[in-house]
Amino acid sequence: MTETLIKVDLNGSPLDNDMVHNRWHPDIPMVAKVRPGDDFILECYDWTGGFIKNNDSADDVRDVDLTTVHYLSGPIEVEGAEPGDLLVVDFLDIGPLQENLWGFNGFFSKQNGGGFLTDYFPQAQKSIWDFKGMFTSSRHIPGVNFAGLIHPGLIGCLPDAKMLESWNKREKALISTNPTRVPGLANPPFAPTAHMGRMQGAARDKAAAEGARTVPPREHGGNCDIKDLSRGARVYFPVYVKGAGLSVGDLHFSQGDGEITFCGAIEMPGFIHLGIHSIIKGGMAKYGIKNPLFKPSPMKPNYQDYLVFEGISVDDSGEQHYLDMFVAYQQACLNAINYLKTFGYSGAQAYSLLGTAPVQGHISGIVDVPNACATLYLPTEIFEFDINPGAAGPVKMITGGVDMPVSPDK
Amino acid sequence: MTETLIKVDLNGSPLDNDMVHNRWHPDIPMVAKVRPGDDFILECYDWTGGFIKNNDSADDVRDVDLTTVHYLSGPIEVEGAEPGDLLVVDFLDIGPLQENLWGFNGFFSKQNGGGFLTDYFPQAQKSIWDFKGMFTSSRHIPGVNFAGLIHPGLIGCLPDAKMLESWNKREKALISTNPTRVPGLANPPFAPTAHMGRMQGAARDKAAAEGARTVPPREHGGNCDIKDLSRGARVYFPVYVKGAGLSVGDLHFSQGDGEITFCGAIEMPGFIHLGIHSIIKGGMAKYGIKNPLFKPSPMKPNYQDYLVFEGISVDDSGEQHYLDMFVAYQQACLNAINYLKTFGYSGAQAYSLLGTAPVQGHISGIVDVPNACATLYLPTEIFEFDINPGAAGPVKMITGGVDMPVSPDK
Amino acid sequence: MTETLIKVDLNGSPLDNDMVHNRWHPDIPMVAKVRPGDDFILECYDWTGGFIKNNDSADDVRDVDLTTVHYLSGPIEVEGAEPGDLLVVDFLDIGPLQENLWGFNGFFSKQNGGGFLTDYFPQAQKSIWDFKGMFTSSRHIPGVNFAGLIHPGLIGCLPDAKMLESWNKREKALISTNPTRVPGLANPPFAPTAHMGRMQGAARDKAAAEGARTVPPREHGGNCDIKDLSRGARVYFPVYVKGAGLSVGDLHFSQGDGEITFCGAIEMPGFIHLGIHSIIKGGMAKYGIKNPLFKPSPMKPNYQDYLVFEGISVDDSGEQHYLDMFVAYQQACLNAINYLKTFGYSGAQAYSLLGTAPVQGHISGIVDVPNACATLYLPTEIFEFDINPGAAGPVKMITGGVDMPVSPDK
Amino acid sequence: MTETLIKVDLNGSPLDNDMVHNRWHPDIPMVAKVRPGDDFILECYDWTGGFIKNNDSADDVRDVDLTTVHYLSGPIEVEGAEPGDLLVVDFLDIGPLQENLWGFNGFFSKQNGGGFLTDYFPQAQKSIWDFKGMFTSSRHIPGVNFAGLIHPGLIGCLPDAKMLESWNKREKALISTNPTRVPGLANPPFAPTAHMGRMQGAARDKAAAEGARTVPPREHGGNCDIKDLSRGARVYFPVYVKGAGLSVGDLHFSQGDGEITFCGAIEMPGFIHLGIHSIIKGGMAKYGIKNPLFKPSPMKPNYQDYLVFEGISVDDSGEQHYLDMFVAYQQACLNAINYLKTFGYSGAQAYSLLGTAPVQGHISGIVDVPNACATLYLPTEIFEFDINPGAAGPVKMITGGVDMPVSPDK
Repeated sequence: MTETLIKVDLNGSPLDNDMVHNRWHPDIPMVAKVRPGDDFILECYDWTGGFIKNNDSADDVRDVDLTTVHYLSGPIEVEGAEPGDLLVVDFLDIGPLQENLWGFNGFFSKQNGGGFLTDYFPQAQKSIWDFKGMFTSSRHIPGVNFAGLIHPGLIGCLPDAKMLESWNKREKALISTNPTRVPGLANPPFAPTAHMGRMQGAARDKAAAEGARTVPPREHGGNCDIKDLSRGARVYFPVYVKGAGLSVGDLHFSQGDGEITFCGAIEMPGFIHLGIHSIIKGGMAKYGIKNPLFKPSPMKPNYQDYLVFEGISVDDSGEQHYLDMFVAYQQACLNAINYLKTFGYSGAQAYSLLGTAPVQGHISGIVDVPNACATLYLPTEIFEFDINPGAAGPVKMITGGVDMPVSPDK
Repeated sequence: MTETLIKVDLNGSPLDNDMVHNRWHPDIPMVAKVRPGDDFILECYDWTGGFIKNNDSADDVRDVDLTTVHYLSGPIEVEGAEPGDLLVVDFLDIGPLQENLWGFNGFFSKQNGGGFLTDYFPQAQKSIWDFKGMFTSSRHIPGVNFAGLIHPGLIGCLPDAKMLESWNKREKALISTNPTRVPGLANPPFAPTAHMGRMQGAARDKAAAEGARTVPPREHGGNCDIKDLSRGARVYFPVYVKGAGLSVGDLHFSQGDGEITFCGAIEMPGFIHLGIHSIIKGGMAKYGIKNPLFKPSPMKPNYQDYLVFEGISVDDSGEQHYLDMFVAYQQACLNAINYLKTFGYSGAQAYSLLGTAPVQGHISGIVDVPNACATLYLPTEIFEFDINPGAAGPVKMITGGVDMPVSPDK
Repeated sequence: MTETLIKVDLNGSPLDNDMVHNRWHPDIPMVAKVRPGDDFILECYDWTGGFIKNNDSADDVRDVDLTTVHYLSGPIEVEGAEPGDLLVVDFLDIGPLQENLWGFNGFFSKQNGGGFLTDYFPQAQKSIWDFKGMFTSSRHIPGVNFAGLIHPGLIGCLPDAKMLESWNKREKALISTNPTRVPGLANPPFAPTAHMGRMQGAARDKAAAEGARTVPPREHGGNCDIKDLSRGARVYFPVYVKGAGLSVGDLHFSQGDGEITFCGAIEMPGFIHLGIHSIIKGGMAKYGIKNPLFKPSPMKPNYQDYLVFEGISVDDSGEQHYLDMFVAYQQACLNAINYLKTFGYSGAQAYSLLGTAPVQGHISGIVDVPNACATLYLPTEIFEFDINPGAAGPVKMITGGVDMPVSPDK
Repeated sequence: MTETLIKVDLNGSPLDNDMVHNRWHPDIPMVAKVRPGDDFILECYDWTGGFIKNNDSADDVRDVDLTTVHYLSGPIEVEGAEPGDLLVVDFLDIGPLQENLWGFNGFFSKQNGGGFLTDYFPQAQKSIWDFKGMFTSSRHIPGVNFAGLIHPGLIGCLPDAKMLESWNKREKALISTNPTRVPGLANPPFAPTAHMGRMQGAARDKAAAEGARTVPPREHGGNCDIKDLSRGARVYFPVYVKGAGLSVGDLHFSQGDGEITFCGAIEMPGFIHLGIHSIIKGGMAKYGIKNPLFKPSPMKPNYQDYLVFEGISVDDSGEQHYLDMFVAYQQACLNAINYLKTFGYSGAQAYSLLGTAPVQGHISGIVDVPNACATLYLPTEIFEFDINPGAAGPVKMITGGVDMPVSPDK
């Protein structure tokens, strides 16, 4: 049996587990050591460390303290890895824990995190997804069932001090342009809720005050939320510190491109089985690499029949934005949501679907001034009924009575 | 044999062909009439109407008058189509003309159009691509050969007067925020070079002064440049005027997501064989449709082995942008370009490849403040050598001596 | 424009065209010469040379003289190709001729050729298929429409004298085991209807008396009828004579695995655009090659949703056969036919569908004595209605009134 | 957590587990009861019940008593299922047991079972495959690594008495044609090693004497060894007895079409997570169903780059067989084996690869008298080196020193 280097206790607090951490800092102590050729398993908390429950209230989504996330398992030291190398890692398997065969998806309140369509869905909502083997379905969103494209939302190696400094500097500069914005433009270091793994005392306090928040993706990878960086993929990670320091968490059973619902994909605790394939010495310079590079898995859900929705960078008020892919993808998503509503789904259900199912979001046109063109590929096979357009018009297949719980702001 | 409703003479000027037009206006006269169930062929000029030549100079790319584009074939009247309907159209086939088995790709000068990476490639450059059956390769970019994902860059129905007005209004408002910008934020109506099809006299002059330029995609579709809206697709077009008025042009032998090189994909004149499948009466309201909807083709190049490059919304100067997918995709593209350069390609060759090959661009993360995460999927099978990373580092397979012609600004 | 080395006149007789032949013999004169790196087009007659017409009678299928087939275009000499080499050929494109946008499928009478299910369908029947761009449908089989997986049924290099002798010897030995069987076990040389290309006089007569019939696939390839040896494929052909002598014909717009209907796939005249990629000198020995080897196309119809039917080697009388894949695949086909009949198709229509659509036939189990297990993969997406099983049972979507013409034996 | 209805103890004997059986008989008592809508887990022994060990000797493969196989978990009673119904079952997941992360493949001695190429490989040989998450590789066959296409080799509902009688009758008739053949033409009932589940005493003895052996696939499904009947598939099983009586076993981590090595695929004990989707009442008659029907999984290894080998029905002695797909597929397999040997593999290693990797075997031509044409699709991506043909000839990547253990007959 493969060794499990890090275990998690879903009945306990991640704060009591010194093999997890929730900030990026070069000084976080390694918690295990492996060599090229080794394979091993890491268990992970869900990104909130168990705060969100399998129930029919969205209060937990509304009330979650976002300064506490994400709880990452690691860092793992890889013998022989040095700054400038590429660490080649195989995602041999990823899955849920047998004692927790469910996940959650939600929208944050606009007052506490927001999300891609927060102006349209400003209140906290939640859907619970049950796992049956490879498949998932939700009691809050009838009529869909699909195979999981399981992946870690967040994985990467520890930054070095210089890179950490550049992160903090550029993000603080952004925040300073509108420091009172709700939701905030970025999340600065925040010591009180920092979990620095095995760091103690003054060293911990100093690092906690400097440690980068885990929310955004950055040069090392981090919270990329790339759905195709999934079980079966091979990844080439830049190494910044001796021993690499690979950490991982925020496992998703499934997610659509963009993770538009923010809270988030279908979020779950679980395990990841990693294999250290090799180290490419000096690989960053050899291949001109700044960010991780990967090869997708040979095995993932193969839904091929799509309905494709277009969106352009003109917002709902009719205002013209210049090649703005954010607005264009919002419009493509809203077009898909409006379409799904004609079959009986609530807007929230449709929004949640786009955040959880293996939806593709493509940057289709990015030069035809002034309009960016985004496309959203919705797989029709995940529905238990026919959602194609026809001469007769849509039949209301979802007849109501079921919706996602909502929790208005207090 | 299928009837060809519109023919083009590649030795003549599109200005002499009254079955083409280069502006959008509700009053452009229909040039042919078809019924649901009919199929027919339309020939199309390349988007520049033949200005770009098969030679080794980029002078034509540098000097092209962008007020003259795009030359569209149509509009075609569909019996029974009325405002509010959805026109269901099958792309039965698309291809080049036998007398013109080549296409072009280029970057505009920053002074005349620019492009997605114009700050990195500010001068006009060009590559010529030869077609051999299903495949294409370029004498300016060695080592690649791939099957064409043939599609029209531009297709849609005529707008009505109200929609046209809203287009002009919102685009003018954008231009007014920085009217002297180079390249311009948008392109206003421009009567002198307008080709209004069969319109004549004062009516033509009035419409030419109002007619929307064809550059951006808009609600009706238009210049979407969606590579998967390809031969074999079925499209549901919103109808705004009686008879629909479907026009099409800007055919591409192949293109990567985003059409990042702007001039453009692999551009070509050619033919499109369309079938009017049906009309969904009142379909826009029935299905909540604002933009065209489509189903991709059952047949397209099936390259499955990808190298995936990530990009985040921090630009090269280190500045942090807020969830800016434009910057993130620029970074993903630059990462791919830097990678390809280690195999011997020039930056321009790599850039041109990303604009022409069936590259996917995904909106991977759009909520993890402050960084958007874009991914670029580069198919490895289009290369005649192995471009995967390995312990030994890249071998310079492209040994130089060949590059894309460049034409500095005059 | 690519040069067309061989042209065919569909209004004339293939017997008048000295660049075609209908037997295999090493002495058939080359009709054109090409070099590695060249690409060129060959036009081809349909396999019967135009005998089958686009009408609603199966008399021509019943009456066809099978000693006259197949009319092949060639042989083409490749400079530098020598016995023992591998000739690497790219299928750059294949398609119908613009003046003949239709094809035919049929079942021979059991008295004249028969077929895979001739005991179930002993009479001549025919269906006509119209081509609209990439797609085909038949007025004789409603409710289906699919993209063509276009391929040559028959292609290969000339045999040398020794190989030809071995073919004739082994096939005659088989025939001698049951010389009066109807249909015959094999087809011996038959001089009267032999078309030996440019051979004349006594040499022609001698070769005609020896020339191998073109019906079966053999070591050189020949009439393999492999649907995936299609446009876009790369093939490695064994070379037996100096100059290779590549000939091709029997083009199919589409076919299911097995070509079970024998007459045949969707048969058509057309063109094939070939590229001589290279010659691997001594490649047969280097790679241990006896038969052609190929790499499938990157582009073919991508139907992914299948209903799979199983068959085992017990025939309809209940007799047990020992690992007999012929019987097992017959049973899988009959199971699919019986299934389709519950939706309203006639048995003949269903049989024809399995012979023409991109159906897969797999050798699933070939060791579990005494039963072979064959599987037939029927793509559901080619149907214009839902053919999946459901609790309500099948709805008769095909309501009759249309069937395939049948011509009883005279 | 999903309930596990049947557990297996890999340290114990399957003979001590009364929830397994190794014969088909209508009277084998149900061991658990479920309802439509339920999902549950069944654990399974490997097909030999643990006889084959993870070591470097093939003695166990040589000495296995084939009258003892296959050990099946079940039968499971489904409430409401009646003869004539279709039982709709979802394969929600399948996998190995954590305590047994390896499987075996082998060839039987020609004296004890044989196999598809037993005349070429007459001695017992074995390879052991380790599982690392989704992937497998073998210490006996270097240079390959691939994702598992996990499936049950054997699954089906209990036959009724009449069907059982017909099985025994037809198979005995076959055996009687050559009763002393080695290996035997079929396997008759054999009471001494029959494990009849919970049957006891005289009833057990009577049923043991009648019970059909589990080796062949039959009308109910059974030992189909269909690689695509895999995790994620939906299957429609004919029901013959009240309660259906679904039994399953013979799990495979991976297998090529045909299971040519007979012993067998990559064989393993494991679990299968089944969901009873529904019952289609009277479905056999409604849909004309005789054998099970299935829809493949949306998720399976997606290897797309193939080398395709052809084989025709002429055997190695040059003898011509009439449309014999068995001979044709043998030839295709031998062609692939000869090819792989030029890269350094032993014949046995190559044979084992074709039995274990997700190789496709197609019935390509089955009408072109006298030659059947089979094709074998070998995925190139499972190799850690390039196995495509090239001008330079093959490089011996496998340099020997490692081979599959062989155990000559005693």
